Amino acid sequence: MAMASASTGRPRASGSSLTGQGTRADILAAGAALFCTEGYGGTSTHALAAAAGIRQASLYHYFGGKQAVLLELLLGTVQPSLETAAQLLARDEHPAVRLWALCVSDARLLAAGEHSIGSLYLLPELADERFAPFHERRAELETAYRTLVAACGVDDPGAGAALVLALVENVILQRRRGAALAPERIAEAALRVLALDPSEAAASGPALLADLG
Amino acid sequence: MAMASASTGRPRASGSSLTGQGTRADILAAGAALFCTEGYGGTSTHALAAAAGIRQASLYHYFGGKQAVLLELLLGTVQPSLETAAQLLARDEHPAVRLWALCVSDARLLAAGEHSIGSLYLLPELADERFAPFHERRAELETAYRTLVAACGVDDPGAGAALVLALVENVILQRRRGAALAPERIAEAALRVLALDPSEAAASGPALLADLG
Repeated sequence: MAMASASTGRPRASGSSLTGQGTRADILAAGAALFCTEGYGGTSTHALAAAAGIRQASLYHYFGGKQAVLLELLLGTVQPSLETAAQLLARDEHPAVRLWALCVSDARLLAAGEHSIGSLYLLPELADERFAPFHERRAELETAYRTLVAACGVDDPGAGAALVLALVENVILQRRRGAALAPERIAEAALRVLALDPSEAAASGPALLADLG
Repeated sequence: MAMASASTGRPRASGSSLTGQGTRADILAAGAALFCTEGYGGTSTHALAAAAGIRQASLYHYFGGKQAVLLELLLGTVQPSLETAAQLLARDEHPAVRLWALCVSDARLLAAGEHSIGSLYLLPELADERFAPFHERRAELETAYRTLVAACGVDDPGAGAALVLALVENVILQRRRGAALAPERIAEAALRVLALDPSEAAASGPALLADLG
């Protein structure tokens, strides 16, 4: 079976990977680049495979189609923040300090990477049920924000969490315009919007973030 | 020449307009619907013309192509706010009250219409120079925000205006998720993020807005 792989369109050995992290990572990198520069609707699986340096048939060994590539890219904009949120919810620092740390961490994630995957959040295609796992994880993240906002003693934590996320997620629009605010500045603004004094969080938040590792 | 119009693909009389506002408005309505539900990349001028109830050749009597349709839709998300901003900059109410009114007015505009044109702000296609007029008008609006923020005595009015716009423009992401905050709530949050007390603006802002007409 292994001998047949070259002739049936199986991927190259990972030694020739474009990203150096294997074919799967190459496909994700190609998807990020093409979806963010050419547009998702206009990108074919053929173009995706070509940009990843593999044949179209090989792509289907890794992903069910371009939807699956987009879904994995989108999950990557939420999953690390969910893990940070779970760590923060289990700690006992003042909730405002933990909220500050979550905002900084999440804003950094949205600002990271060569291509702004967050700019794909508004694609009409995301209404398709195949993207439900992304919407569910994003809703879980909003719940984590709401829990921390509620722990700060804010009235109507649902609206408070929406305002905080508005500031954090605006990193996406800022990147589009080529000028993003510093994550620490966004986190301070998030506390201010909740009528909380950000000075203690700004002072002790960096140590908390460093401690999360 | 007029007799030839039916056979050369000229538009119907406006009496048969789908929107009741003429063929040009029909094309814009069709563009808003298709770009926001099917995606911009996947919408052909043929589909655009069909949805507007005209022939493809007729569409070119009104617009140079689908880029021109998108450009006009995008300008419609900024132009009314620019006009409101110009009125507000010429008045003598306290700048925080005028900033509150601009936020409410702008958030209402982004929340208006059956389709969320703002969701097209992140399209990679907008990097094309044909969309420069939109980016220029949007930059003018940000300048108007900055002028009002500076008049409030805020340090670093550039960053302050960016935070205020982050809250206002998040209406776009909120609509995508089906739950938008009230414009007045967003405007209060905008003053709070600048460390300004929103109570006076919330009290006298509505009368100012009503006076603008």
